Amino acid sequence: MRVLGIDPGSRVTGWGVVEREGSAFRHVGSGTIGLPTGDGLEARLALLHEECRRLLAAWTPSAVVLERAFVARNVQSAFRLGEARGAVLAAVGAAAIPLHEYAPAAVKLATAGHGAAPKDAVGRGVVAQLGIDGPLAPDASDALALALCHLQQAPLAAAIAAAARALPDAPPRRGRPERGT
Amino acid sequence: MRVLGIDPGSRVTGWGVVEREGSAFRHVGSGTIGLPTGDGLEARLALLHEECRRLLAAWTPSAVVLERAFVARNVQSAFRLGEARGAVLAAVGAAAIPLHEYAPAAVKLATAGHGAAPKDAVGRGVVAQLGIDGPLAPDASDALALALCHLQQAPLAAAIAAAARALPDAPPRRGRPERGT
Repeated sequence: MRVLGIDPGSRVTGWGVVEREGSAFRHVGSGTIGLPTGDGLEARLALLHEECRRLLAAWTPSAVVLERAFVARNVQSAFRLGEARGAVLAAVGAAAIPLHEYAPAAVKLATAGHGAAPKDAVGRGVVAQLGIDGPLAPDASDALALALCHLQQAPLAAAIAAAARALPDAPPRRGRPERGT
Repeated sequence: MRVLGIDPGSRVTGWGVVEREGSAFRHVGSGTIGLPTGDGLEARLALLHEECRRLLAAWTPSAVVLERAFVARNVQSAFRLGEARGAVLAAVGAAAIPLHEYAPAAVKLATAGHGAAPKDAVGRGVVAQLGIDGPLAPDASDALALALCHLQQAPLAAAIAAAARALPDAPPRRGRPERGT
């Protein structure tokens, strides 16, 4: 199972590919996509989109993992981060590769052992779990942390889904159907 | 001069094409791109991106116009709107068509006569300026308003740029060069 983590940013986007081999994880590749600040917003987002299409075609991951975005310093940062996410996600959707999102606390728990770990502890956890020599670019490290988080959670999620399928069907609902939120 | 206005949204994106013919404006086409709510975020953004690529290829505009995004109800709405903008802008950048952005007040001024006009006054202004029979979808109307705003401002902007070019060169700066913000 090969997983691509992506950490989108309006200036630098990190990416990292991790494979599960038995109970171990292997660092396949990682890096960053820098966007030239001199170009217009639309040219930068087109470049980001194109680079993501290339990553997806080159690494053929079975899943893509992003951080669930719900915090930002302010509305402006949320717009800028949202734009980068939009350019990335449009590439993921075009490749029809399943997308998974995890909250920052889940990623910290998976890599540094607790959900409120500082950023450098996440980096050390990634290096230790993947047996990487030397430091990683912070954005690449964050992307690898996302991939690791999914690889750790995926077997549990699959087991829960299998258990749910093995249960007898639930009785039909009575009365008004619930509306989704 | 043919201009494509786009009003991105996470559910519905409006678009409208307007041409200048002498001192008059002509409604060339307009519509909306609805995104199926059942699909995942990445599939919806991929569809939006692809539809924008089709619009750009079909109408070959000389400029694309979006609203400058700087207000949102909250950080979550800013993320969602930013994602839709990112998918749209990546398509505009890939087509290498010049992008222009206007603040909401400039669009209201251009279509309804004052910068604090209510939404329905903008719609009436669009219908009147383009001589359209019958009502437009609100998102399509907002996109046409963006195109109209640019077509009204473009001659003034071009005149200012020409006047600036005709001025003698400014003397060279002394001291440390200023850093961009």
